[in-house]
Amino acid sequence: MQNTPDTLSVISDFSRSPHAHLHQAPVQSVRLADAFWQPRRDANAGITIPSQFQHLEDTGALDNFRRAAGTKDMPFQGMVFSDSDVYKWLEAACWTLAHPHPDTLDTLVSDTAALIAAAQQPDGYLHTYFVLDKTSERWATISRGANNQHELYCAGHFFQAAIAHHRVTGSAQMLDVATRFADRICDTFGPADTQRHGTDGHPEIEMPLAELYRITQNPRYLAQAQYFVDVRLGMGRINDAEQTLLPFRELSRIGGHAVCAVYLAAGVTDIYAETGEPALKHTLDKLWDNMTETQTYVTGGIGSRWGVESFGDDYELPAHAYAETCAAIGNVMWQARLLALSGDAKYADVIEQTLYNNPLTAKADYRRQPWFGCACCPPNIARLLAQLPGYVCSVGERAAWVHLYIQGDAELVLPDGRAVTLTQQTRYPYDGDITLSVDGAGPFTLHLRIPAWAEGAQLAVNGQPVAVTPGTYAALSRTWQPGDTIFMSLPMPIRRVRAHPRVADAAGRVALQRGPLVYCLEQTDSPNADIRDIRLPDNAVVTPHTSLALPGGIVALEFSGTQASRSDWAHTLYQTDTMRRSIPQTSVPVVAVPYFAWANREPGRMLVWIPTESA
Amino acid sequence: MQNTPDTLSVISDFSRSPHAHLHQAPVQSVRLADAFWQPRRDANAGITIPSQFQHLEDTGALDNFRRAAGTKDMPFQGMVFSDSDVYKWLEAACWTLAHPHPDTLDTLVSDTAALIAAAQQPDGYLHTYFVLDKTSERWATISRGANNQHELYCAGHFFQAAIAHHRVTGSAQMLDVATRFADRICDTFGPADTQRHGTDGHPEIEMPLAELYRITQNPRYLAQAQYFVDVRLGMGRINDAEQTLLPFRELSRIGGHAVCAVYLAAGVTDIYAETGEPALKHTLDKLWDNMTETQTYVTGGIGSRWGVESFGDDYELPAHAYAETCAAIGNVMWQARLLALSGDAKYADVIEQTLYNNPLTAKADYRRQPWFGCACCPPNIARLLAQLPGYVCSVGERAAWVHLYIQGDAELVLPDGRAVTLTQQTRYPYDGDITLSVDGAGPFTLHLRIPAWAEGAQLAVNGQPVAVTPGTYAALSRTWQPGDTIFMSLPMPIRRVRAHPRVADAAGRVALQRGPLVYCLEQTDSPNADIRDIRLPDNAVVTPHTSLALPGGIVALEFSGTQASRSDWAHTLYQTDTMRRSIPQTSVPVVAVPYFAWANREPGRMLVWIPTESA
Repeated sequence: MQNTPDTLSVISDFSRSPHAHLHQAPVQSVRLADAFWQPRRDANAGITIPSQFQHLEDTGALDNFRRAAGTKDMPFQGMVFSDSDVYKWLEAACWTLAHPHPDTLDTLVSDTAALIAAAQQPDGYLHTYFVLDKTSERWATISRGANNQHELYCAGHFFQAAIAHHRVTGSAQMLDVATRFADRICDTFGPADTQRHGTDGHPEIEMPLAELYRITQNPRYLAQAQYFVDVRLGMGRINDAEQTLLPFRELSRIGGHAVCAVYLAAGVTDIYAETGEPALKHTLDKLWDNMTETQTYVTGGIGSRWGVESFGDDYELPAHAYAETCAAIGNVMWQARLLALSGDAKYADVIEQTLYNNPLTAKADYRRQPWFGCACCPPNIARLLAQLPGYVCSVGERAAWVHLYIQGDAELVLPDGRAVTLTQQTRYPYDGDITLSVDGAGPFTLHLRIPAWAEGAQLAVNGQPVAVTPGTYAALSRTWQPGDTIFMSLPMPIRRVRAHPRVADAAGRVALQRGPLVYCLEQTDSPNADIRDIRLPDNAVVTPHTSLALPGGIVALEFSGTQASRSDWAHTLYQTDTMRRSIPQTSVPVVAVPYFAWANREPGRMLVWIPTESA
Repeated sequence: MQNTPDTLSVISDFSRSPHAHLHQAPVQSVRLADAFWQPRRDANAGITIPSQFQHLEDTGALDNFRRAAGTKDMPFQGMVFSDSDVYKWLEAACWTLAHPHPDTLDTLVSDTAALIAAAQQPDGYLHTYFVLDKTSERWATISRGANNQHELYCAGHFFQAAIAHHRVTGSAQMLDVATRFADRICDTFGPADTQRHGTDGHPEIEMPLAELYRITQNPRYLAQAQYFVDVRLGMGRINDAEQTLLPFRELSRIGGHAVCAVYLAAGVTDIYAETGEPALKHTLDKLWDNMTETQTYVTGGIGSRWGVESFGDDYELPAHAYAETCAAIGNVMWQARLLALSGDAKYADVIEQTLYNNPLTAKADYRRQPWFGCACCPPNIARLLAQLPGYVCSVGERAAWVHLYIQGDAELVLPDGRAVTLTQQTRYPYDGDITLSVDGAGPFTLHLRIPAWAEGAQLAVNGQPVAVTPGTYAALSRTWQPGDTIFMSLPMPIRRVRAHPRVADAAGRVALQRGPLVYCLEQTDSPNADIRDIRLPDNAVVTPHTSLALPGGIVALEFSGTQASRSDWAHTLYQTDTMRRSIPQTSVPVVAVPYFAWANREPGRMLVWIPTESA
């Protein structure tokens, strides 16, 4: 199975969406050739995805499909939503096929696709738990969003896999299964007396229903996505009985289970891209403001509460964060859709912040824990890595957009059919110098993102300086000639960042950042001090450092910290102010490493927020 | 049913324990006549305990006994350990009978006792869940402490109720049921091949088995308590599979479920009081040091972790504390036993800190939430209030001890038979002046606790000053004459207390304390400022204040705080240091109320740790 030249491997096809102004570049059209992402993508294609397939075999997730297809007689295995692990894997594998990959992957994909097709029931239904003796329990716990058997959630993940399969391979096999199942769902759910009323506790299906509409132009899929939004109360999987659940258009704060919330918001953004309903955009803006102004970790993580995996109150960002990887990935998906609507750089800033500081930590988790009972995150990371080239560039009317700086090239096709090739040379994220070669003649505007953190950024086209503003796109409108070269310099001084005073766990502390990277202290780097005792003096000079035994060119930071003597506190937990004497300080060398690199060495404490004052 | 003059209403009878040096005063012998505790005890006797009885009827907890007795045919209701609610209620009611009480309470006690007696099975077994069709499941999940059906836990609470019933009413009815059940347990559990090996996941039975030994002098009960300690791994109900579970004598840190941990420690202290085994005391000391030096909230609360209701790592004391009321009560029980061993004032300090700053907050919870599904805390508070007089004084060899300063009197009998009456006049805890009248002729030592916080304490006997040291007992040895009068003055300046620098949530903050009381800010007292924005300047004068509309003579605190303008942070969650300008401060009047009084007015935020620096 090879890609056909005419395959349109875009993740979300906004090319005919009346309210989107940017169109994602096909995954296949962007080739990454950098030292940060591409090695991870190679490992994803060569190691992670094949080994995840084996796990799906080992855990019985694939056998569930054989059981539903009638080719294997055995009990259902795993959690009720284990089908979604197979679908996320298939989606990841399909996007991986868009670039050079191990030959065996084609076979795994086609075998899995055949297995799924065989498991579809004669009436179009597809969920391996609710078959055989459980057939009568289909859709039984669907409500206005509070209950949760994940049937529509699994359907949504299947649709996303089917769309990826269709767009990368050109085959209609999975898409046909998907539309048959989608038709069954559209027949089943709706406002009519003869239909079931309600939706899944876990949003997910909204995004791919809109995408099925984009592929098929069948309006019922878009209407169905809208119905599922209209009928829902809250943002999904709310366990807190005291929370008042409002319809989507009446929400003013992001809340509930974080993955649910961003999946739902992404789906609503997809619907808005088609319908342009102002009430939806108004609510999306409120949720976005609330999330980014009060409920986002400095690492881009969201969903601070353990237990219910949910958002919390405004400024409730405890250091012991939940911040599920799936929520970060869902947030990237949401931000990419918002970016397509507007071309506003603030959405790309969130994508970058999240990509560099969030899901990669779960890769570390993944290493420590080969698989999870609820294994939602590992295949979700796999699909994000596989999709990643699709988030780098966009095109628009007489315009090309660069959102992320990653060494490699992109062969873009503008809506008017002109080809533009962009080539990036850079050591980003460790260095802010970027050389872009533009190969595409004629007049168009090249939009280059200037990250909000890049104070003092400089840009020159063929040596001619252009003024830029951090937090916006530099819009370079000219008649481009082959060989045009852009040089950008994004200064990467080490920044000391403070949190809003209401973030209790960050009071009196700073987070160190350099470029898009957030740094942390790991205990393993401080053999002579407990990292909880380390303070960063205001006048300390923090310097970048590359000679550590860290892989992949990782830039660490170093500074001379202070460490307060604890002798005055021997055997006391509380002291009155009058008992406290001046505390002798000793100097201690401190190393900070990028947060994404956390937990790849010996286990130990980690902290992001470093106290600035001696205590 | 009236109290008989010869009833020995002590909680824990150390009078023949070879390794205890203090003996608790009988509950009946101490009469409280203060404005702080006695009104709460009156409400406990007149309102709480009758209404809790009604709840036990409404929830089916009493019907479970009728079902087990064969007088009611119905399913078991409530949680598997709901019997313990009945027992804790009965214990609370029995201790309440030791002082003037509503007449109806005698009937409730005798009816409940009869109901329990009727529910005992012919072989002595008593647990209303494991009867009828569940009889074969008795003891099925007993192990080395990890599993948990609460059978021995419930037995322990029954024994405590039976002991209270016996000691206050003089009746043998419940004690006979208890010894029959205890004999059955001793026959069932032990090291012999014919016996079951193991113990309950939830410690509790160890304390009353030791007490049954003290009453009956039957050594098998003490040996059984010791067996249950010897066979256990960890401190009970450990849900964290990664924690290594050690036998008790090998523990060096307090850990696991906090209620379990302190109940177990209290039981071990009871055993040590009888056996004097050095290894037990050595471990108890280590656990105590670890708990008080690293794992106790400034309010005396313990068990910081939500979810598993457990202790955490050293210095893991997040502001959003779990700190279950039952754990605080269990800690009082443990400290009272340690105090009996040694007469070391540090244990009495913990008791006072806990009594004034901890369980009373659950009274507020109780008001807000009429009953809990797992209603372990409300009857536990009821029994603590009923027992409270028993914690005020002790006697020893030619000695009387005063641990707590509460207006009232105590009619003590020294071991040599001499009667001593102590009368306290004081407005403690709001005022530190205490007048003690001693009526008891002859030579003995009167030990008066000088709280560790009472710097500058003064004491005079008949006007003659005596030097004292905070954190110890002043030992007044003389030949006392009727009419001798002691005047103590415990200065109550307002103290600013800081926590060990490793307590992250207290960094840069102080807790206000006055006397034994910890204070907090409640949002309802600050209509013009969010209490999260308030700062306590180093030079602010904090003054006591009694004119607030607060009941019971509560002393509030006032100071002029600062409130940082948030205008610089509009719509930003993170800022680099270089973006921050000088922040305009405004002055704001601030009121702090005692922590125990929290949540008796409008709902709202509360905080104990007040930031000292502007941010």
